[in-house]
Amino acid sequence: MCGVFGIFGHPEAANMAYLGLHALQHRGQESAGIVSSDGERLFGHRAMGRVQSGFSPTDLATLPGDRAIGHVRYSTAGGSHLKNAQPLGVDYARGSLAVAHNGNLTNHEALRDRLEARGSIYQTASDTESIVHLIAMSKKEELRDRIAEALTQVEGAYSLLFLTERELIAVRDPRAIRPLCLGEMASGSGVTHVVASESTAFDLIGARKVRDVAPGEMLIISADGVRSEFPFAQEPRKLCIFEHVYFARPDSTIQGVSVYEVRKAFGRRLAAEQPVEPGDDLVVIPVPDSGVPAAIGFADRARAPFEMGLIRSHYVGRTFIEPQQSIRHFGVRLKLNPNRAVIEGKRVVVIDDSIVRGTTSRKIVKMIRDAGAREVHVRISSPPTRWPCYYGIDTPTRSELIASSHSVDEISSYLTADSVGYLSLEGLVESVRSLEARAGDASGARPSAESYCHACFSGSYPIPFTPAAPNRQLRMVSG
Amino acid sequence: MCGVFGIFGHPEAANMAYLGLHALQHRGQESAGIVSSDGERLFGHRAMGRVQSGFSPTDLATLPGDRAIGHVRYSTAGGSHLKNAQPLGVDYARGSLAVAHNGNLTNHEALRDRLEARGSIYQTASDTESIVHLIAMSKKEELRDRIAEALTQVEGAYSLLFLTERELIAVRDPRAIRPLCLGEMASGSGVTHVVASESTAFDLIGARKVRDVAPGEMLIISADGVRSEFPFAQEPRKLCIFEHVYFARPDSTIQGVSVYEVRKAFGRRLAAEQPVEPGDDLVVIPVPDSGVPAAIGFADRARAPFEMGLIRSHYVGRTFIEPQQSIRHFGVRLKLNPNRAVIEGKRVVVIDDSIVRGTTSRKIVKMIRDAGAREVHVRISSPPTRWPCYYGIDTPTRSELIASSHSVDEISSYLTADSVGYLSLEGLVESVRSLEARAGDASGARPSAESYCHACFSGSYPIPFTPAAPNRQLRMVSG
Amino acid sequence: MCGVFGIFGHPEAANMAYLGLHALQHRGQESAGIVSSDGERLFGHRAMGRVQSGFSPTDLATLPGDRAIGHVRYSTAGGSHLKNAQPLGVDYARGSLAVAHNGNLTNHEALRDRLEARGSIYQTASDTESIVHLIAMSKKEELRDRIAEALTQVEGAYSLLFLTERELIAVRDPRAIRPLCLGEMASGSGVTHVVASESTAFDLIGARKVRDVAPGEMLIISADGVRSEFPFAQEPRKLCIFEHVYFARPDSTIQGVSVYEVRKAFGRRLAAEQPVEPGDDLVVIPVPDSGVPAAIGFADRARAPFEMGLIRSHYVGRTFIEPQQSIRHFGVRLKLNPNRAVIEGKRVVVIDDSIVRGTTSRKIVKMIRDAGAREVHVRISSPPTRWPCYYGIDTPTRSELIASSHSVDEISSYLTADSVGYLSLEGLVESVRSLEARAGDASGARPSAESYCHACFSGSYPIPFTPAAPNRQLRMVSG
Amino acid sequence: MCGVFGIFGHPEAANMAYLGLHALQHRGQESAGIVSSDGERLFGHRAMGRVQSGFSPTDLATLPGDRAIGHVRYSTAGGSHLKNAQPLGVDYARGSLAVAHNGNLTNHEALRDRLEARGSIYQTASDTESIVHLIAMSKKEELRDRIAEALTQVEGAYSLLFLTERELIAVRDPRAIRPLCLGEMASGSGVTHVVASESTAFDLIGARKVRDVAPGEMLIISADGVRSEFPFAQEPRKLCIFEHVYFARPDSTIQGVSVYEVRKAFGRRLAAEQPVEPGDDLVVIPVPDSGVPAAIGFADRARAPFEMGLIRSHYVGRTFIEPQQSIRHFGVRLKLNPNRAVIEGKRVVVIDDSIVRGTTSRKIVKMIRDAGAREVHVRISSPPTRWPCYYGIDTPTRSELIASSHSVDEISSYLTADSVGYLSLEGLVESVRSLEARAGDASGARPSAESYCHACFSGSYPIPFTPAAPNRQLRMVSG
Repeated sequence: MCGVFGIFGHPEAANMAYLGLHALQHRGQESAGIVSSDGERLFGHRAMGRVQSGFSPTDLATLPGDRAIGHVRYSTAGGSHLKNAQPLGVDYARGSLAVAHNGNLTNHEALRDRLEARGSIYQTASDTESIVHLIAMSKKEELRDRIAEALTQVEGAYSLLFLTERELIAVRDPRAIRPLCLGEMASGSGVTHVVASESTAFDLIGARKVRDVAPGEMLIISADGVRSEFPFAQEPRKLCIFEHVYFARPDSTIQGVSVYEVRKAFGRRLAAEQPVEPGDDLVVIPVPDSGVPAAIGFADRARAPFEMGLIRSHYVGRTFIEPQQSIRHFGVRLKLNPNRAVIEGKRVVVIDDSIVRGTTSRKIVKMIRDAGAREVHVRISSPPTRWPCYYGIDTPTRSELIASSHSVDEISSYLTADSVGYLSLEGLVESVRSLEARAGDASGARPSAESYCHACFSGSYPIPFTPAAPNRQLRMVSG
Repeated sequence: MCGVFGIFGHPEAANMAYLGLHALQHRGQESAGIVSSDGERLFGHRAMGRVQSGFSPTDLATLPGDRAIGHVRYSTAGGSHLKNAQPLGVDYARGSLAVAHNGNLTNHEALRDRLEARGSIYQTASDTESIVHLIAMSKKEELRDRIAEALTQVEGAYSLLFLTERELIAVRDPRAIRPLCLGEMASGSGVTHVVASESTAFDLIGARKVRDVAPGEMLIISADGVRSEFPFAQEPRKLCIFEHVYFARPDSTIQGVSVYEVRKAFGRRLAAEQPVEPGDDLVVIPVPDSGVPAAIGFADRARAPFEMGLIRSHYVGRTFIEPQQSIRHFGVRLKLNPNRAVIEGKRVVVIDDSIVRGTTSRKIVKMIRDAGAREVHVRISSPPTRWPCYYGIDTPTRSELIASSHSVDEISSYLTADSVGYLSLEGLVESVRSLEARAGDASGARPSAESYCHACFSGSYPIPFTPAAPNRQLRMVSG
Repeated sequence: MCGVFGIFGHPEAANMAYLGLHALQHRGQESAGIVSSDGERLFGHRAMGRVQSGFSPTDLATLPGDRAIGHVRYSTAGGSHLKNAQPLGVDYARGSLAVAHNGNLTNHEALRDRLEARGSIYQTASDTESIVHLIAMSKKEELRDRIAEALTQVEGAYSLLFLTERELIAVRDPRAIRPLCLGEMASGSGVTHVVASESTAFDLIGARKVRDVAPGEMLIISADGVRSEFPFAQEPRKLCIFEHVYFARPDSTIQGVSVYEVRKAFGRRLAAEQPVEPGDDLVVIPVPDSGVPAAIGFADRARAPFEMGLIRSHYVGRTFIEPQQSIRHFGVRLKLNPNRAVIEGKRVVVIDDSIVRGTTSRKIVKMIRDAGAREVHVRISSPPTRWPCYYGIDTPTRSELIASSHSVDEISSYLTADSVGYLSLEGLVESVRSLEARAGDASGARPSAESYCHACFSGSYPIPFTPAAPNRQLRMVSG
Repeated sequence: MCGVFGIFGHPEAANMAYLGLHALQHRGQESAGIVSSDGERLFGHRAMGRVQSGFSPTDLATLPGDRAIGHVRYSTAGGSHLKNAQPLGVDYARGSLAVAHNGNLTNHEALRDRLEARGSIYQTASDTESIVHLIAMSKKEELRDRIAEALTQVEGAYSLLFLTERELIAVRDPRAIRPLCLGEMASGSGVTHVVASESTAFDLIGARKVRDVAPGEMLIISADGVRSEFPFAQEPRKLCIFEHVYFARPDSTIQGVSVYEVRKAFGRRLAAEQPVEPGDDLVVIPVPDSGVPAAIGFADRARAPFEMGLIRSHYVGRTFIEPQQSIRHFGVRLKLNPNRAVIEGKRVVVIDDSIVRGTTSRKIVKMIRDAGAREVHVRISSPPTRWPCYYGIDTPTRSELIASSHSVDEISSYLTADSVGYLSLEGLVESVRSLEARAGDASGARPSAESYCHACFSGSYPIPFTPAAPNRQLRMVSG
């Protein structure tokens, strides 16, 4: 997963991009990058790690101009190298071009084979480079036509930002799998246009969300303002529902729906679908921070107290020294400590957004029991995660997903929980759909149950894909 | 404020100290240090910043032995230099000695004048160095007698850990102002003894809290086990109540009282003392994370929904680049973003633990109102902070404390709030006292309303003090 | 200017490349890089700065395999960015390919226009990328044929190393402008082949120089040994004479000629061409270290004592803090201090290899006079530097070269010297030619006066060139 | 060994100290420190490593005032910790005091026992701390009297700089073992006074050497100018002759004698005492850089050509990666490469200043022979080094000094040299003495053969000493 941010028409464009990326930091901490333009040239800086550590005031000072795009990249299974950091910047016949990409191309292998056979060289391990090759090879005159021609040849999920000396172009794939939204802010006498993966990025810089970018829409932002085009054949919308479950920040809205409110709705529905025996000794606790809204919803519906039964440390970083002599639940304890005062002697319902491998959940259940809980009931505010994502979220392979090979009872037994309950797929989709319907999309469209991608839960993949050959993209391993 | 940790009888003593300090990181991020011993020599490492950044595996490998003490130091007004980092380690006639100190000596100026007149030299800006001089000058034979003799000459608040080649000695001042507790864990065939500022440090390493160290108690921990002595004249207990209000972690217990539960009790009492007109449009939100327990208590008593109306960023570090063109509420926004979905159109009660200067609270109130709140009622789970602390907590000078010169109405007006309400001093003390009475101290003592230091709220200082001459301790400014 | 090193068939190929680059460090300190291969994949690491600071043992451990190429890059006028560091590594239809390049292509602009028009994208500011595009686009089957086809389309100076999973290919341009030599060393039961810009790189790793690579020669090094091919049309040899004057290390040999000996010969001839009035008070001093051999030769011929009249500091690094209040000759003083004991009261002949802008020489002359010299005579062991190099050496533009617009008398006056004397072009060429003739090239060829490129002195450029359009290669300015 | 620098009355005192220390960097690279004063407080910064890496412009900006002292410290056998870096800065009854010390106290163990028994604590492993304790304990009123009283209790070698808010005091021990000199420079309307271990530090900042500080002299530098006192009983002068042999920079003068000239004199005398059979095939080469002046002198007297037969790399840093598969003479090769062109087929005389363990010399001899030398004759411009120094130079223990247990023939055999010849002790002393007599000390004193300490060669120690108890100063091992 990644996050993208773009701004056009602001005297401190790079600084604003830096702040926008900071607000999107949860979408990727592996690397960060910004490319700006002063209308004549492009200027870039990319760095491994977080935005704050990778961008000094000196670095930002090398990024002049009133327009910029930025990118944060999630840590991926493959090699973590600066050369894979984005935006990807190239020179080609028409000038310079920088690209920031959130998503994943499903036909990348075939594309690359075709392009390499023609003589193209690859300097990164990213599918974004193929998009750039296609744009450079297009015979069209205008950049927007080149981009449209290139993107008709690719399949998959993409929210893309392009920056040249003159324009900022934003494109969302026809199925609108990954989020992208448009905002604006006053700036001097004019208006500054901004685009971002999530609306929370607008809040930090004092911008206002105008709307979500529509499925298949291309926004051409220039000194002439924002122009909207729809260069692609229409496809059914397939919004990634996992953004609501886990990925997006709770203070963002997607298609008019508050992520926080939808998570509370998941919790309420979960309490109805997977109730726990009521009683004075019942307490509902979240796995912080992502489980908090669902736990509030669950507690509300179950009429049981909501408590912070796990205290999260603010000081956990990447690397940590583990003692040789093992400590029970060590890895989790560094981040979460059970709050014995609210757990001891209680029947505890612990709410989390999902279970991936199950190892962390198992440690949490044991920690809660060690802290004196009489019972531990695990409730998950989404269906079992059974299938990998091919559209841009980094999930483990199927074999690592505990729910792909274990029943709920088996999972409960593995976690050493008294019970485990998942939200149903229908409950999940209906919760989002009804809130979205109530919000009323600007386009007037009413989402159906088919408007979402939930392949990670259902295995129902909206776009076919070719699994990558082993190590295909990593022949040249480079730092 | 600082945190201390000690361990005796563990094969990975320095690693455990590292983890213990990590759990106490909230008590100080300016510097961290560990001194270990293998029974023959002492080995030390100190570094600026957090434990994780300052201690690499290589650093820890230079700290052999089965006993260690550690210290984390809070950022103070004075110069921030490595030489002020603790533990302070010296050689003297009897061998080597390391000291870690949480607290503040009120007669330090007089002590230092006396010692300098005798020919003592000072290499740090810390009052801890005077304690070491007094120990080195004592004519007693045994270290515990030297320490006792030294400490009878000092006044103030101290929780102290001493490490020599043979012993770990822990001392808590007779008024027990700063917390200190004793724990243990099994280790191989024997038992490992641990001491720490807060019990949460025991949780991380899998140790069990045995009890709080008693007022005026000295624990001598050696290969012979733990011996307890009371070398000082008895004084009335004066536990710092601000530890409960803000400083301690919610998953710690102090004198048997859960910090989390006491904060919820503050919230409930606050709802009773300073109610807000009920109604369906009322919502209670905390300033995260410290305001969460009180907000849960307040919401429970006020029968209003508890919501996360401010979303905290996990990625805020020390330095940040601020744009030249100002952004409304920028400094606060980096850390907290209003969650419009739960605020818009609501009457909002926002719960915080205290107001210091008022500038941050003012920004929060404005942000909440900008996000659509109809009313903003500020409720504070402690009395107005009017007086500086001379016993180890770094507070601004009186003139900077908004409550020292403004009435509650004036504060409300400054904050642009619809109302402001503080918990009463009596409500504060009674909340702690009744929970402590219920917990039942091991000593059987029943705390009275006089058992707490609340000078920062009341101005009632239990120990007289001499304000330091300007810059007295900082003549030698050194890196 | 840059340096290249390659090795094939050594169990510690990357470590050896690291040492080889260390020995070539004088050829470039801007960046360093190594790409290795284990026969299946390529592995790369590149870093800004020197080899020693950019390559940790951990970095080297990521470079497995028994073959490797490396590159050190000189600080250039244009942007100094990691993406311009070499070797350049790409994936293309046939696998992976890494390239290290010393030299400069004179038809790069035209090449790039042609390639971009075809749809090629550029991710670096280097002409090396065009070579890779041409190789990727070739329809030939074998890499060596692709390389030959690509290089017939380029013009200019190049010593190139290519590494694939299977082969190391070394190519020297038909005019042999930049140096490149072949060596070997025993390794276990087999033989390890090495190539390097200068023979001094072989000394450090205990290898033996076999011979210089011939003009237009391509060496294909694989598990089958070394095969030599000559795929290009023959051209007159044009060895860069500035390598002998300044660039190469004195302990290297080029075409059989010791750089140290040729510099001594320059000094002797200079003493004959530009004598200074003899006398007991005459002393000959070098500008260390590059001026030492010529000064020894001059002193020998002039029968005057050679002394170290300028002491060089070993501790000068990149950045240095300059006091606001100016110090006379500060910039030079940090590096060189006059040795008053051998200068005071003397007539001093100071020997340097060349004068570029004249500012440093002027400071040196003044420093020597301040130290008590009665006269200061500047003698330069090459002709006036009047023309920029287009074949790989980074020289200032013509307008910055003092000799391009000033007569020797004017230069002498600017330097405040008593006299200035340069070696004649004929003296320079004859000195090299006669030593080379004596050395006897393996090929039996006798060098003529036309066998050298001395364009920087004579303006006689052996290959036509198109000056780059302003900023042409820097449209995309990226970090 | 260490270097000290002091300055009084300069608007950029800390910057000048930084430059002065840079010029003294050869005297110590373990740590560097500066303490400045603005007349009211002292400000310090110390760092491990070299001056340039340890002092950023930001660091220097924290050191205001017009007076400063600085120190560079040599890497010692014991622990290398920041707390041992100097200047040592303390607060005591009279204010603040900083000390920079070059030398070693021979009665330090006894002093420390006495002071610890009195109650003194030690925070460093350095003997300098005892001096500060003695000053703090003195009952005298004036600092200069306190210092004099303290120093009458210490024995050994010391060149000391003290800085307080008001004065800079410089002291050289009565035997004048370590060098110290006084300089001055114009600054605005007044005069700036400077003191330094070597005169080369004055050259860099544009100051003029006034004179060497006299044996037992104390200089009190304040706003009133420089006052000279002689508070100690007179002792015979015992100038360290090893400064001339190796330690000092060749462009320094000590007691009026140019270090460069005295080294040339060593070389000439060595050629007379230890001649090598003359012949056309004889060449004299130095081990650069320290052997250069002696080699010039030797070649001159022997009428043989001086050549740079070993080329020194400018890029050798602290750590280097060594290949697992050993390379002949690897450690030396990184720094020195034989210049085959001047060695092959020759009888080579290689000149070095001293032989310590013999391991490096052995590698050099072998490298020279491998490069084709017919004979290798080692000539050393000082007598055999047989005894450790107790007065401030870090030498190995006796058992590690090859000459303490081997005859010259045995050393020659170990080095695999054709012959080895040392300068005689008489030759050494006479060379210095005659130049010093010629220079004519300001005091008019004529140095005798007894005016030098040559204990490292002769074992004739001018001051008795007590060897330190094992690990005595390192009980508290701290970072």
